[in-house]
Amino acid sequence: MVTSPTPPRSRPRRAGRLPGRQDWSTWPHYQAAAAGFRGYWYPVCYSSQLTGKPKQVTLLGEKIVLIRDAGTAYALVDRCPHRGVPLSEGDQQFPGTISCPYHGWTFDLASGDLVAAITDGPDSPICGKVTQPTYDVAERLGMVWVFVGDGEEPHPIDEQLPEELVANEAVLGSRMQPREGNWRFACENGYDEGHAKYLHRTSLWRLFKSMPVWNETRIVRRGRWIYRVQEKQHWTADFPGLGRWDSQAWWKLKPPTTTANIGNTGSHREVDPVIAAQEFPGFASVSMPGVLRIAYPSFIHYEFYVPVDAANHLYVGVMADFRKGTAALPFYLKYLGFVRWLFHGQFSAQDKWMVELTDAPPERLYRPDDSLLRWRKLAEEVTNERHARLRADGLEPR
Amino acid sequence: MVTSPTPPRSRPRRAGRLPGRQDWSTWPHYQAAAAGFRGYWYPVCYSSQLTGKPKQVTLLGEKIVLIRDAGTAYALVDRCPHRGVPLSEGDQQFPGTISCPYHGWTFDLASGDLVAAITDGPDSPICGKVTQPTYDVAERLGMVWVFVGDGEEPHPIDEQLPEELVANEAVLGSRMQPREGNWRFACENGYDEGHAKYLHRTSLWRLFKSMPVWNETRIVRRGRWIYRVQEKQHWTADFPGLGRWDSQAWWKLKPPTTTANIGNTGSHREVDPVIAAQEFPGFASVSMPGVLRIAYPSFIHYEFYVPVDAANHLYVGVMADFRKGTAALPFYLKYLGFVRWLFHGQFSAQDKWMVELTDAPPERLYRPDDSLLRWRKLAEEVTNERHARLRADGLEPR
Amino acid sequence: MVTSPTPPRSRPRRAGRLPGRQDWSTWPHYQAAAAGFRGYWYPVCYSSQLTGKPKQVTLLGEKIVLIRDAGTAYALVDRCPHRGVPLSEGDQQFPGTISCPYHGWTFDLASGDLVAAITDGPDSPICGKVTQPTYDVAERLGMVWVFVGDGEEPHPIDEQLPEELVANEAVLGSRMQPREGNWRFACENGYDEGHAKYLHRTSLWRLFKSMPVWNETRIVRRGRWIYRVQEKQHWTADFPGLGRWDSQAWWKLKPPTTTANIGNTGSHREVDPVIAAQEFPGFASVSMPGVLRIAYPSFIHYEFYVPVDAANHLYVGVMADFRKGTAALPFYLKYLGFVRWLFHGQFSAQDKWMVELTDAPPERLYRPDDSLLRWRKLAEEVTNERHARLRADGLEPR
Repeated sequence: MVTSPTPPRSRPRRAGRLPGRQDWSTWPHYQAAAAGFRGYWYPVCYSSQLTGKPKQVTLLGEKIVLIRDAGTAYALVDRCPHRGVPLSEGDQQFPGTISCPYHGWTFDLASGDLVAAITDGPDSPICGKVTQPTYDVAERLGMVWVFVGDGEEPHPIDEQLPEELVANEAVLGSRMQPREGNWRFACENGYDEGHAKYLHRTSLWRLFKSMPVWNETRIVRRGRWIYRVQEKQHWTADFPGLGRWDSQAWWKLKPPTTTANIGNTGSHREVDPVIAAQEFPGFASVSMPGVLRIAYPSFIHYEFYVPVDAANHLYVGVMADFRKGTAALPFYLKYLGFVRWLFHGQFSAQDKWMVELTDAPPERLYRPDDSLLRWRKLAEEVTNERHARLRADGLEPR
Repeated sequence: MVTSPTPPRSRPRRAGRLPGRQDWSTWPHYQAAAAGFRGYWYPVCYSSQLTGKPKQVTLLGEKIVLIRDAGTAYALVDRCPHRGVPLSEGDQQFPGTISCPYHGWTFDLASGDLVAAITDGPDSPICGKVTQPTYDVAERLGMVWVFVGDGEEPHPIDEQLPEELVANEAVLGSRMQPREGNWRFACENGYDEGHAKYLHRTSLWRLFKSMPVWNETRIVRRGRWIYRVQEKQHWTADFPGLGRWDSQAWWKLKPPTTTANIGNTGSHREVDPVIAAQEFPGFASVSMPGVLRIAYPSFIHYEFYVPVDAANHLYVGVMADFRKGTAALPFYLKYLGFVRWLFHGQFSAQDKWMVELTDAPPERLYRPDDSLLRWRKLAEEVTNERHARLRADGLEPR
Repeated sequence: MVTSPTPPRSRPRRAGRLPGRQDWSTWPHYQAAAAGFRGYWYPVCYSSQLTGKPKQVTLLGEKIVLIRDAGTAYALVDRCPHRGVPLSEGDQQFPGTISCPYHGWTFDLASGDLVAAITDGPDSPICGKVTQPTYDVAERLGMVWVFVGDGEEPHPIDEQLPEELVANEAVLGSRMQPREGNWRFACENGYDEGHAKYLHRTSLWRLFKSMPVWNETRIVRRGRWIYRVQEKQHWTADFPGLGRWDSQAWWKLKPPTTTANIGNTGSHREVDPVIAAQEFPGFASVSMPGVLRIAYPSFIHYEFYVPVDAANHLYVGVMADFRKGTAALPFYLKYLGFVRWLFHGQFSAQDKWMVELTDAPPERLYRPDDSLLRWRKLAEEVTNERHARLRADGLEPR
């Protein structure tokens, strides 16, 4: 450990302020939606997880008690108005109700009405004067969905689900995982054009596949969805002064020799993602309130980014195979055999890693981030339309 | 996991703002006393736990060092004025003093005077210029009590303790347990008329006893205490549209066939809780600064809710038997045999559970909460009187 | 547990507000430097710990990525400007660069320039438009040093290191330990005249040595350093009304019979700490930005208090022996044999204990704290000079 003097190298620049966009005020609704967009259905747990035992979930920062009664799922604000104790700590004393554990305040599950305050007797004057706010609940895709709004009548959940899941029977494989990080980082990561080819280059899911270095991409809106259309893929690249970079290897599949072009989706023709996927794998689209759809030749992968609060989200990944009857059997085997582990496991864990580390704004976007900009623009437009409806319905001041 | 569409049920109400009382500004002193009421004696540890080794406790948010010297207990502010190091990390270098571990600043335990700064020698100019604030200390019921005030001469502790504990010898069994939650929630839970019959219906302590469903109750003030007088008890109840509810079972003791009425306590006669308890079990009273007394036929149970800080309290439960000599022996056996486990253990753990979960205001009170309202009113009145005294003594601006 | 009444003792004073100096506004630069003084070199890790694998350190509250490339150490702001992901999670794709793990943004280590955004191809328009701030790095004493400034050209590190370590070869033994507590408490503890004789009286390092009870001391500035000159040592003391106090024992070395006086350091003669140490052991000096030097007869001990953030610091202890060749061998044996364990271990752990507990201001200083006051004054003077230079260079508004 003898001291060995080294001359300090001169450095042209030193630490200062962070560069780039300082906030998201360009997209005010998006900026305000740290805890999620109101006015949507969100999946919160598997249907099989909801029984007669009350269960607490947090959604858009709101604590909600879920319970199943006579086969139907119900949801109420999980805070007894009496003294603030969570109703999810209580249980059922009468059918169709839930009772607070502290004093036996008993609420009708369907209406939220206080129908008994047990410890004040049958003639308790408080009955009829208190109603616990409820949430609309639906069950789809083997999951319980809750609508969080601002007093409006919820739209039918089938208008929000991906169309092909409503119109067709599908075989599903799915995964729900609570994750750290804002839901917007998760959604932007999912739809991000740029990261897949770099971050996931080491994933086992891509073990035998070459990945392009970079793509030329166009974003196209069709109805509720915006689609990422890849005009051109570049399988290798020479970076001036640095050298060649690609993800090819002798033991990997060779990339296609002709460059696919799916710009022929037409300007107003409705896109059928199943058909599109047969034309070109990895056809990605996104819709509000944070739903990603990636069409592969033999199945479609969905991701729902559910806002728990500003710092946490629930990752819901679903794979759907639309073949019918025994033709779907191989999907089960494939999903349980390795898709679940490679894709929903290690591949998705790389995304989880980045979503936890992302810290923006400030941010300095680059060309492939056009997919992010278009997603934020979509969110802004759709949310403007929603607020116009709320104002028209008198649920928001004009 | 095939999708099975279910029509969403219509819901009349949805999540909004919390109902009821939004704050406690009706009782301004009570609202301000999140960390406890000043001007009272509080128990902080067992006398047997206090030795010549300094011990830190937190009381009303203040860190206090306790030490026993030549048999007497002392208390000082636990922060050396020099550099903020806790004196409780130090020890004794000279009898009757405590020394800071850092530089040996040495304080007289009785007066708080800095009598030596060891590392500045015997002629240190700082001596005589610094005095550490002290607290008055007393020992009662096998516990160390500290007075936290605002500079006033403390009232004698015997004027604050339950009268029958001062006037009589008693055999005691007790329990101290640090608990989460504000001390006011603990105190309100203790005196609460409503919860006992519902929350504790499953406690082992009540295993063989039927409990009423609800009571008709009157709150009566006698001196420092307010008493809960149960006019009428209802052992079963039929809730319209829901059904019958009670805590009876074939293996439980049957409830009394005549309804007890202890409204004959007279309007100005002093209540003797021991006698009252013989008339009717479970006679509950409460006094400042948060002391609960429940008289049973053969003993009295006390709870002291000691404010540690705004988020924590010390639960001190005491059972006292006033029989003398060998007559008290069965109490010991009973207490150690099962009272300690059933009452101070599992029964009290249900209260602990609720106190941790209570989150008020906002709150929406109901008829049995008259006991809470009267307790808050008592606290307000007594505190107004205290501030009048402080102003009269020039310890508070008029 | 029978109640045994004790009369409460009367107490003259009770708890109130904290006495003494309420803030450090007397030394505004020092007060503002909670996270450290800017414009200095700081050691952050051992040279042997820095490899081609990126490493994150926090210094003055700034997250910095360090990496070694072709033998040279580099440092950059550890936050990719794109989406805020730490570069330290990435790796090297090309020599002389570091790449963000998310999208492959690739920065030149020497200049900080973005030289490639891999997933946007070789012609990415963002290249040449983004530069990541860098830090100057040097390696000395077997450690990596980073300069944190405000845009100024860093001064040569050798002008900041203790002179004798630059001018001479030395054999070193060292220790780095992350510690809780503000760096100023650590530095003040190190230079503090008062605590050593009291806090460390029980340390094994002093097992066989008597310590004085108190000293008469003078602080003398020589160039960048202020020296603690002990005029007189008092080996025992009688405290009036309390008794005698010293750290002597029959099994300890007796204190020197004549009182050493090293006031003959002259008013302008340069002090050579090696020579001074031969005159008198334990000759302590301190310099900016928080460097302690204690000269012992056979070696010099240094402590560098490195600000991590306002609540944490890195303790860097170095022992240097200036004897050459084989004469230094005994130092190795001595250091590894017991100095490392006694001094850098248990002795230093007592300081760590106090630094964690110190809570100032408020503070009430006493006579031996003249060493602290002079250190703060030095920091203030030197920082005023630095800001004058920054203003002259146009790096700070006049």
